[in-house]
Amino acid sequence: MTSSADLPLLITTGEPAGIGPELVLMLAAQGQLPEQAVAIGDVDMLRQRAEALGLAVTLLETLPGQEVKAVAGELPVWPVALKEPAVPGVLNPANAGYVLATLKLAVNACQAGQAAAIVTAPLHKGVIIEGGYPDFTGHTEWLRDACGVNDVVMMLVTDAALHTRAPHWQGSGDLRVALVTTHLPLRQVADAITFERVTHISRLLAADLTRQFSIASPRIAVCGLNPHAGEDGHLGREELEVIAPALDALRAEGIDIQGPLPADTLFTPRHLAGVDAVLAMYHDQGLAVLKYAGFGQAANITLGLPLVRTSVDHGTAIDLAGKGVADPGSLNVALSLARRLANQRASAAC
Amino acid sequence: MTSSADLPLLITTGEPAGIGPELVLMLAAQGQLPEQAVAIGDVDMLRQRAEALGLAVTLLETLPGQEVKAVAGELPVWPVALKEPAVPGVLNPANAGYVLATLKLAVNACQAGQAAAIVTAPLHKGVIIEGGYPDFTGHTEWLRDACGVNDVVMMLVTDAALHTRAPHWQGSGDLRVALVTTHLPLRQVADAITFERVTHISRLLAADLTRQFSIASPRIAVCGLNPHAGEDGHLGREELEVIAPALDALRAEGIDIQGPLPADTLFTPRHLAGVDAVLAMYHDQGLAVLKYAGFGQAANITLGLPLVRTSVDHGTAIDLAGKGVADPGSLNVALSLARRLANQRASAAC
Repeated sequence: MTSSADLPLLITTGEPAGIGPELVLMLAAQGQLPEQAVAIGDVDMLRQRAEALGLAVTLLETLPGQEVKAVAGELPVWPVALKEPAVPGVLNPANAGYVLATLKLAVNACQAGQAAAIVTAPLHKGVIIEGGYPDFTGHTEWLRDACGVNDVVMMLVTDAALHTRAPHWQGSGDLRVALVTTHLPLRQVADAITFERVTHISRLLAADLTRQFSIASPRIAVCGLNPHAGEDGHLGREELEVIAPALDALRAEGIDIQGPLPADTLFTPRHLAGVDAVLAMYHDQGLAVLKYAGFGQAANITLGLPLVRTSVDHGTAIDLAGKGVADPGSLNVALSLARRLANQRASAAC
Repeated sequence: MTSSADLPLLITTGEPAGIGPELVLMLAAQGQLPEQAVAIGDVDMLRQRAEALGLAVTLLETLPGQEVKAVAGELPVWPVALKEPAVPGVLNPANAGYVLATLKLAVNACQAGQAAAIVTAPLHKGVIIEGGYPDFTGHTEWLRDACGVNDVVMMLVTDAALHTRAPHWQGSGDLRVALVTTHLPLRQVADAITFERVTHISRLLAADLTRQFSIASPRIAVCGLNPHAGEDGHLGREELEVIAPALDALRAEGIDIQGPLPADTLFTPRHLAGVDAVLAMYHDQGLAVLKYAGFGQAANITLGLPLVRTSVDHGTAIDLAGKGVADPGSLNVALSLARRLANQRASAAC
């Protein structure tokens, strides 16, 4: 039986008019892909994109179940055919089904034990909706539904090698920030912070830090919602009325969780020491510091799925597509994170 | 005539039951105070605090107008008498008037040309209110009123020497973050972001980057309010309806200002290059990353005042007071910043 450490690491190349395909090709040309990496996408499109950008990449057409081991300059591909030819920079709703087909193939392969993890290049939500999928709300939500789970958690991770704070960060070396709310207008955030949501997200986070990151007793530090974590109610009462009771309940369940702490001092060496993940209440509270720490190169991981899924932390960058100027840094971090998580899972299964 | 570079750098020692007095004494004992530094506070209290903590500091009682030049282990003091003896860790409303008197002396001296700058150690808002000043709303607001100006801007600054991102930060080496809103519950932030407020704060910021930091044509980068700066209105409309029009108006006035930009990518080398200050919409959006960058040691500067005022970025830490364990790092940064600003002002006046 093949060890899951040898199974393909799938990269869905995402929106074909965006930067996803060329990011994968750039890493392949530079010999920076893990040897088990396999791209999923249209082979002709990938070949044309490589030629147009002058990237010396040999595409190796292969299929689920076949063993692959690429060397620098080679890119194994599981083919999925475009509906219409893709032009960089020009979104085409006719190819919406193609994008979803690449994801479907990846999920099926993971579920069938034919792949170790999925790394997703960006897709374009608007063009998927326009292309005949009006209920599509996002990559993460699609994967949640495809895997038949109710809730997932968005967590961003820096690669320890990228940020110079590692000596101060007493955990694994990575900075990890999970979010209670994600893509919500700021004026809706306060009402979305409920006892149920804080406890539920915290439980998913704690469980996956153990299951996916092999941290036996994860320590979580939680930000307050308001400046200075509400300053004893003078700057908002959500900490007293919602967050602190939720954390009390979680501690009573045995989860090692501290807070609510002022977000502006939590991300300092003294408070981060020994912490495995920070739980921020909303997007900019947690991600500005995380991307600063990672020099803008972080990866997104979806917790709560039965499979390993990491993602870039950026969009399709339609305006940059086809120019070869996009930065593959985040894809690189997402791949290295997926590789480590898949290896941990493989060794845990031994 | 004495050059303003030689004038005293005043340190108001703040709440006498808090950590302010001992932070000043610790820096004096370590020989880390600038040679023009002068503390303002009760001489007996300072002497007792030094003795209790075993800090070898000789207090030099002096007065406004007298020249001072202390060496390591000496601390010149402009005396202001406590109303009642201060016990570390025990707030006493009877001394509220004392705290305000130290500030008043500092402002008067600056206005009379007898001091170069004010650096404030923390005070305790609650005990000032309780002590007979029910209208007191904060240090910064008190200084605003004492100086007779209508509006001020809170900006936090890291010391370039403290953060390792300096090579990527193409400005002066410091990271500077100013705030449109400050100590406001998060659910009130969106409504506080108005055209008037954004334009007014931006103008004050641009003017003081020139006046206080000697930056002839400051470049300002502005965060959006919502995640991804609203993503073209999909995640909130304040960027389209309020912030972008405000920035258009400011550019029409000749201010070099860009945005609104997603806060989670703005604080990365590519976007920070050449930027003199970031304007964040609210507290945690800007200050979490700033304090991370400065290892938790940043200083606060009040823009829009006719005098130089910097401050620590922390509170009175009543629970730590009298123990000698508090960290004087932020006071050190506040002093070094005040020193630089006073020197710039002095050289500009030559």
